[in-house]
Amino acid sequence: MIKNIPDLQEKLHDLLLSQKDSITQGKVAEYIPALAKINPQLMGVCVATIDGNIVGVGDYQQPFSIQSISKVFGLVMAMNRMGDSLWQRINMEPSGQAFNSIIQLEWEKGIPRNPVINAGALLISDVLASHYSSSKLAFLTFMRSLANDDNIHIDQNVYQSELSHGNRNAALAYLMKSFGNIEAEVPEVLNHYFTQCSISMNCQQLAQSLLFLANKGSDPRTNDIICSRQDSHRVNAILSTSGMYDQSGEFAFSVGLPAKSGVGGGIVAIVPNYGVICAWSPPLNNYGNSVVGMSLIKSLAHELNLSIY
Amino acid sequence: MIKNIPDLQEKLHDLLLSQKDSITQGKVAEYIPALAKINPQLMGVCVATIDGNIVGVGDYQQPFSIQSISKVFGLVMAMNRMGDSLWQRINMEPSGQAFNSIIQLEWEKGIPRNPVINAGALLISDVLASHYSSSKLAFLTFMRSLANDDNIHIDQNVYQSELSHGNRNAALAYLMKSFGNIEAEVPEVLNHYFTQCSISMNCQQLAQSLLFLANKGSDPRTNDIICSRQDSHRVNAILSTSGMYDQSGEFAFSVGLPAKSGVGGGIVAIVPNYGVICAWSPPLNNYGNSVVGMSLIKSLAHELNLSIY
Amino acid sequence: MIKNIPDLQEKLHDLLLSQKDSITQGKVAEYIPALAKINPQLMGVCVATIDGNIVGVGDYQQPFSIQSISKVFGLVMAMNRMGDSLWQRINMEPSGQAFNSIIQLEWEKGIPRNPVINAGALLISDVLASHYSSSKLAFLTFMRSLANDDNIHIDQNVYQSELSHGNRNAALAYLMKSFGNIEAEVPEVLNHYFTQCSISMNCQQLAQSLLFLANKGSDPRTNDIICSRQDSHRVNAILSTSGMYDQSGEFAFSVGLPAKSGVGGGIVAIVPNYGVICAWSPPLNNYGNSVVGMSLIKSLAHELNLSIY
Amino acid sequence: MIKNIPDLQEKLHDLLLSQKDSITQGKVAEYIPALAKINPQLMGVCVATIDGNIVGVGDYQQPFSIQSISKVFGLVMAMNRMGDSLWQRINMEPSGQAFNSIIQLEWEKGIPRNPVINAGALLISDVLASHYSSSKLAFLTFMRSLANDDNIHIDQNVYQSELSHGNRNAALAYLMKSFGNIEAEVPEVLNHYFTQCSISMNCQQLAQSLLFLANKGSDPRTNDIICSRQDSHRVNAILSTSGMYDQSGEFAFSVGLPAKSGVGGGIVAIVPNYGVICAWSPPLNNYGNSVVGMSLIKSLAHELNLSIY
Repeated sequence: MIKNIPDLQEKLHDLLLSQKDSITQGKVAEYIPALAKINPQLMGVCVATIDGNIVGVGDYQQPFSIQSISKVFGLVMAMNRMGDSLWQRINMEPSGQAFNSIIQLEWEKGIPRNPVINAGALLISDVLASHYSSSKLAFLTFMRSLANDDNIHIDQNVYQSELSHGNRNAALAYLMKSFGNIEAEVPEVLNHYFTQCSISMNCQQLAQSLLFLANKGSDPRTNDIICSRQDSHRVNAILSTSGMYDQSGEFAFSVGLPAKSGVGGGIVAIVPNYGVICAWSPPLNNYGNSVVGMSLIKSLAHELNLSIY
Repeated sequence: MIKNIPDLQEKLHDLLLSQKDSITQGKVAEYIPALAKINPQLMGVCVATIDGNIVGVGDYQQPFSIQSISKVFGLVMAMNRMGDSLWQRINMEPSGQAFNSIIQLEWEKGIPRNPVINAGALLISDVLASHYSSSKLAFLTFMRSLANDDNIHIDQNVYQSELSHGNRNAALAYLMKSFGNIEAEVPEVLNHYFTQCSISMNCQQLAQSLLFLANKGSDPRTNDIICSRQDSHRVNAILSTSGMYDQSGEFAFSVGLPAKSGVGGGIVAIVPNYGVICAWSPPLNNYGNSVVGMSLIKSLAHELNLSIY
Repeated sequence: MIKNIPDLQEKLHDLLLSQKDSITQGKVAEYIPALAKINPQLMGVCVATIDGNIVGVGDYQQPFSIQSISKVFGLVMAMNRMGDSLWQRINMEPSGQAFNSIIQLEWEKGIPRNPVINAGALLISDVLASHYSSSKLAFLTFMRSLANDDNIHIDQNVYQSELSHGNRNAALAYLMKSFGNIEAEVPEVLNHYFTQCSISMNCQQLAQSLLFLANKGSDPRTNDIICSRQDSHRVNAILSTSGMYDQSGEFAFSVGLPAKSGVGGGIVAIVPNYGVICAWSPPLNNYGNSVVGMSLIKSLAHELNLSIY
Repeated sequence: MIKNIPDLQEKLHDLLLSQKDSITQGKVAEYIPALAKINPQLMGVCVATIDGNIVGVGDYQQPFSIQSISKVFGLVMAMNRMGDSLWQRINMEPSGQAFNSIIQLEWEKGIPRNPVINAGALLISDVLASHYSSSKLAFLTFMRSLANDDNIHIDQNVYQSELSHGNRNAALAYLMKSFGNIEAEVPEVLNHYFTQCSISMNCQQLAQSLLFLANKGSDPRTNDIICSRQDSHRVNAILSTSGMYDQSGEFAFSVGLPAKSGVGGGIVAIVPNYGVICAWSPPLNNYGNSVVGMSLIKSLAHELNLSIY
């Protein structure tokens, strides 16, 4: 690991430059209009360390739609709220299926395989919607607090787009409800889920907000306990086996860090006891992961020997 | 981590004593007669560290059938032999299915999900059978060399039992062959596979043999390079996402170490940069993992804070 | 076949008496309260012939919830309305899966296997809801006209019960909508579907209403063309391969007649060029088919040599 | 139906002429070399009636590889030998899957869905191989007797080709054996299966050999009882729901006759109480059914109003 910050800055800069050609290998998410119109040339990367350094290059302060990266934060909130009883309603096994598959959910009688596939994130949304008087506000407050920025907001354009293209997520939620594993009304669950997906944040905010996962549960800036030490290990374990959709095994194999990606083009990777990397570039590969984001984090992990394995 | 060896010895001793009641929660593997008749009361655990210490308690020097733990060694041999071309014939994704499922293999056109489910281990066996003049001898030689013990041998009783109960593995192999992903004749592949599964070793030998995976690829006793540093990370990554059958996610979640189990009741867990734990007790849970072995390693990992996450 | 009506009456009477013990082998549908409270002792059977005879015994004039038998009528309406273009949105293959399975629908990208599994019936409901200004009224009018009885009505109690237990059907509909294969809003589709399922009719009405399928498409009482000759063959073909849920093959094998059952306990069976049998008894077997209904129709078919094969 | 034979001859002649263009829409089976080299221009059709007429046009006396059509004869032999106990080892439900799928076999624990998918035909082959001292000779004798032609033989070229491309069938058989549903050794089962598939017969022979299925079980030429009346209905029921691979529903829908096809390009269709049609033309559609054969039988069935529904 690099402790010398100017060196890291230079390395990130070089890595970013070397990615200019990779953009064309991916395709910006098109399932909702609000995401499809993003400029595919944007890219940025930021490293936040637990000892307080922030190094960023490119568009690392440009907000983007966090999408599935929100699943990490929702999971932490639900674990805090429910304790171990949460795991009676959801598993922590990798899925071996597409992130939005309904087949496994049927086989396993409405119990999602893990909290970071869509079915699992909907279940977590149900937990939040059922246990908070206003789960959307609670979520936003949590995000603002972690990022220390009250301007973090929901992109209403993305939110409306999600709502009107949410039929598959509705199918997943109704199937779980038919098995008795959703408590709230389905529209309310979807509403929460699309809200948290529609939050806009930038690389720096995401990297800093997740420092507690690299620091045994406590935020190194404030020493606040965001989750228990055990739960920080658990979240990282889930991200390691399942955080990169159906490319999670390959990511563990070739990078070796707990990570979560979103179809907005962002990827966060946790380096335990060191810090958090957040890379962003909208064009996605066939698995839904940012092409440049994967490449940036992989190169950095190799050069700095970051693999946890 | 404990560097003080007498303390570790005492801790292992206490942990072993506390397991006496857990045995009855599991069931010795019954699919072949040769395994079914083992004494379920046997149990042992051994920790080997990269700085040369060996601490063992209970029956840690009693040989047992290594079964699927052999998949780790076969994988290393095949990676060394084939280089990255190996990964054109096999994936490195977790499976989300039972270890011997044929469904996913059909879906994915004969490409096994990873090298530690049965289909993947059969493919690895095909690689070895096709690339060594005598793959069985080569495998045994590798194991004897790693364990530094020329008495390591194949339990012919187990081997014959495997052969006569190998219909499902035959089905997996013929299905892969129908997709053109098996080169050798299927009986030869099965022959190799059942041979490597039938090797007998004890906890101490297994723990010492795998030290290279905790030591960036090199055997700390001899400084021999067993595999590249990168490949040691890769193997540990695969074991972390997929090494404990369909309980791999839960093992990562609750223990947080790369590990591999076998239906003989053994479990090996790698602690990067520290050492290897091998626990053994024949009774298995529903996933095919040793009940006591899981419990021992989990307790030890918690008390020593070993989670890599 | 029996042309002598008193003989048929006596035979039906004997068959009904012989069924008294079979009731206990089944279980009344319990998924909605409105069906669960039916008297399980009720049973009736009616044969209507194309030459104008009606023979019934037992509770053959007692109305019951027609449930999935409504799928036959919905299919005929949709075929009439859409012509062959209907078959671009739905297949006519047997499914080999439970009637409400979502797995096959995912595999086949939202194209239901046939019109008499739930997914298919929902698609048909979408066709009707999208092509009629009031599809519920159109359906009821069609049923009243066929049964020549303006008192046929929707059981509001059943309808409300269906609505509040319709999560799985909602999941199927939203999944199809996510594939672009549902045009109307999902709540509207479900609304139509639950309405047609909640109609109450008796054995005599159902047998008479379906005479056109035994008579090459025309109603023998009025000579009205209800559907084309070709479509009457097609509907009977679909009922023969798929009408009895996942017991359709066994029904063809052991009875040999096009048939459709409903979880209200009714079964209709078409005897081409002869007439229609409708049997009713609420207790169902594991496949969702009336135990007594199956037994009655099977015995009658054997004694009268009715198999079309 | 046409009773006037010259008229039927002329109709068949016209139908055959009209097919010349359809050939190019299909593709000769290529999975084994012995089938791939057939002349795709060959085509013939023959109708045999229970009252003794034979009408054929084109290459209706040219022998071809009967392939899966042999499943009908094997089924009849096994039903005769085992009685109803046969149905404890195999179901009679349509499959909703490709003819050689292994997925459903795994789900249903080694019980094939029906006797005319590959898994089912292998099970039938096991029944024959286990219950006859020489099942291959018994099968050939049965075929020669039905066709009244001692020259009917096994095409050794096809047989050898099948043997060396039989990996998927081996996978199916070993999977069933792993569930305890295969009694003989798998190579013996495959040997029987490939033997019966490799028999050569022509359209006329096949049509005449199956007349008993159109005649309630008895051969109209000899009055020999080939199977019981009930079993003739049962076999026709299975062919109606499952005889045309994953196009069985469409065939019932558009033709309406019990039928069985083979990848050699032959199709037999039973017209109960009338006779048997056998059409042959090697090019196959995506489902493995002869393009011209389907078209010929469909046209004939429409013009003669043959649908049983």
